[in-house]
Amino acid sequence: MFIGDGMADRPVAALGNRTPLEVARKPNMDEIAKRGISGLMDTIAPGVPPGSDTAHLALLGYDPYETYTGRGPFEAAGAGIDLRAGDIALRANYATVDDDLVVQDRRAGRIQDTAQLAKAIQQIKLPGVQIFFKSTVGHRATLVLRGKGLSHEVTDSDPHKIGAKVLPIKPLLPPSEDLQFARAVVAGGIRKYLERKRRAAKTAKLLNEFSRESHQVLKYHPLNKERARQGLPQANCLLLRGAGVAPHLTPLQEKFGLKSACVAAAALVKGVCRMAGMEVIDVPGATGGVDTDLNAKCGAVLRALETNDLVLLHVKGFDEASHDGNAMAKVQLIERVDAMLGSLLAAADFIVLAVDHTTPVSVREHTGDPVPLTIAGSGVRSDGVACYDERAAARGGLGRIRGKDLLPIMADLMGKGKKFGA
Amino acid sequence: MFIGDGMADRPVAALGNRTPLEVARKPNMDEIAKRGISGLMDTIAPGVPPGSDTAHLALLGYDPYETYTGRGPFEAAGAGIDLRAGDIALRANYATVDDDLVVQDRRAGRIQDTAQLAKAIQQIKLPGVQIFFKSTVGHRATLVLRGKGLSHEVTDSDPHKIGAKVLPIKPLLPPSEDLQFARAVVAGGIRKYLERKRRAAKTAKLLNEFSRESHQVLKYHPLNKERARQGLPQANCLLLRGAGVAPHLTPLQEKFGLKSACVAAAALVKGVCRMAGMEVIDVPGATGGVDTDLNAKCGAVLRALETNDLVLLHVKGFDEASHDGNAMAKVQLIERVDAMLGSLLAAADFIVLAVDHTTPVSVREHTGDPVPLTIAGSGVRSDGVACYDERAAARGGLGRIRGKDLLPIMADLMGKGKKFGA
Repeated sequence: MFIGDGMADRPVAALGNRTPLEVARKPNMDEIAKRGISGLMDTIAPGVPPGSDTAHLALLGYDPYETYTGRGPFEAAGAGIDLRAGDIALRANYATVDDDLVVQDRRAGRIQDTAQLAKAIQQIKLPGVQIFFKSTVGHRATLVLRGKGLSHEVTDSDPHKIGAKVLPIKPLLPPSEDLQFARAVVAGGIRKYLERKRRAAKTAKLLNEFSRESHQVLKYHPLNKERARQGLPQANCLLLRGAGVAPHLTPLQEKFGLKSACVAAAALVKGVCRMAGMEVIDVPGATGGVDTDLNAKCGAVLRALETNDLVLLHVKGFDEASHDGNAMAKVQLIERVDAMLGSLLAAADFIVLAVDHTTPVSVREHTGDPVPLTIAGSGVRSDGVACYDERAAARGGLGRIRGKDLLPIMADLMGKGKKFGA
Repeated sequence: MFIGDGMADRPVAALGNRTPLEVARKPNMDEIAKRGISGLMDTIAPGVPPGSDTAHLALLGYDPYETYTGRGPFEAAGAGIDLRAGDIALRANYATVDDDLVVQDRRAGRIQDTAQLAKAIQQIKLPGVQIFFKSTVGHRATLVLRGKGLSHEVTDSDPHKIGAKVLPIKPLLPPSEDLQFARAVVAGGIRKYLERKRRAAKTAKLLNEFSRESHQVLKYHPLNKERARQGLPQANCLLLRGAGVAPHLTPLQEKFGLKSACVAAAALVKGVCRMAGMEVIDVPGATGGVDTDLNAKCGAVLRALETNDLVLLHVKGFDEASHDGNAMAKVQLIERVDAMLGSLLAAADFIVLAVDHTTPVSVREHTGDPVPLTIAGSGVRSDGVACYDERAAARGGLGRIRGKDLLPIMADLMGKGKKFGA
């Protein structure tokens, strides 16, 4: 199952009102379309621009509206933290603040090696909860709280701009006077609402305590003294955001009977796959950029196919090129990927070409346009579509489906469909 | 966004098994299809004939199953009553009853001027609630109750036939013995069910009081004495029906970031638009019939486009022609509308051609057939469809979508999509 991150597009004026997929020479993708069945897919819902996390939840068969509360848990899982359902996870930035907690630099001068700082932070204890903290890439880190009576319904401490003070974290629930309160009461009862509020307040209090203590730990850390000496911005504060609760995702093995692995560079994608119970294979040279080592990824996929029913191959570079507005870089990466797909054609019984979301080079952001989907393999009702691209797929035999329908369809084709009824 | 009310059809024998849209000469609509992307739309769901109110709720992005409980609130809003979420609204008919409250005429001889009667009715007071009452067109009026602890779960007083007695209004909830009661208890708790029942009983009691008092007020009103002298049926009773609770509709500005206006004659459509926070523009000469002043409406749209992101132009006459079984009147109105659309083509960045529901001239009622949809404007993946009609749209690049998906798709194309996820 190949997923081209942001590979789909809208017609590009500079390409003669064609899309990069329509312009690229890609004999292998077109061969797969010819053998297979094509269609359009709304990863989340028509017109809704998906995030990378919600898109991959859907592509793995989970309802994103039921399982997604924030990016935190998927970043944490991507960083290799072994999450349990109910854990509260947040994204953290190492940042520079002055003595009044006013943010000077949200990335502490794009600090690189934070392992020592993380080690010091990991010593922090909070009453009644376990803390997991891990530095990831550059100034990024992830914080997880595990314990009873916690909630993800809290605000960010990150003011999201420089020159502003670090914010106290607050419960996110609406005050009891307003309309949303009335609705919550109608929907679930006052008692349930008050319990939610109590949990949110408790979590906010713990996170504020963590913020204070981590500020103290970082402020007096030798590494920051050294940075000060060198005239570098100190990493003396952690800005927290994107709190989410780790959902229980029924593992793919249990849900669809599929032993699965994932080859990806993007941490958020790896996080979703790990939480879905997939084996996450790290590939040296997989960068997440247009320069990624496709041969290395291809080799990893071929090895993984020997022991797995489903291997997901994710290539991120299209999205990067789209955010840069670079249509030709997209075309070139499509052609490179196509060459790689040639060596996968014979190795798999089924092959899926999919995209997680459209990222038009004219918009430079994810949009809600549907993406092209092709499924080839034994038993599919081939449909006469001979190209893999946005407009050809619209004429395909799959019609227009949702992202969360893809894995049930695949499991069924692979003889693992679960009958509903007698 | 043009909406042709009931414009779609089934193949008509008298038109050589073509539909009015397939027969009409409509170069502008076809040009829009050529430039744009087409598809089929189930306004509510496949096979479900939409009402005017539910169809427009969906076309404005609201889930009709979540927001619709009865026509009352939308008629009241269409009549210009400024509804609040939770208000209970009913449709009222001025009718003629005898001394035993047996209905003689459900429309009081199609009485026209009821302003004086309405004024008298407005004096009625009920304990603990505010009453709003307004005459609309002909024998029609609308009643709104505002207060605490009210419910829309009440029956009609209108027996819906002549020769039958006016009915006492009753709570609509099932008796506590039956299955639905058990389900309600499981779903929401016994306390919640009893509260619903209490509210319904309270509302029924108030409405019966209103019925009695309004009967007294009308019976002795000078206008009815005058009508009796002239041998006309007296408007001595109000028949109530279609109780609904005014939903909270998140305004389009907040929901999609779209400042919006509506140009329509039909009160029910105006009501939905008003409740969605749209500016409702009254156009002299807009009749809601086949004789409507299209030039006046077109001028209003052009002016509204200067200050709005989205302007909805609703033309009702197709539905009227369909209810009369008049295929040629439909063809002619399509051609007149097409000429008008020519002057709108250059004025808007995006143009949508839509239909709220199919009304076949062979059936003379709304049916559940999907309707053709075309979207033209910057960034759409044009699809080679060159006509705007039911069968051409079925081959279009949009596939088959739901009515409630249309505005998310438009907001996304207009650069206002809201990403779900990170």
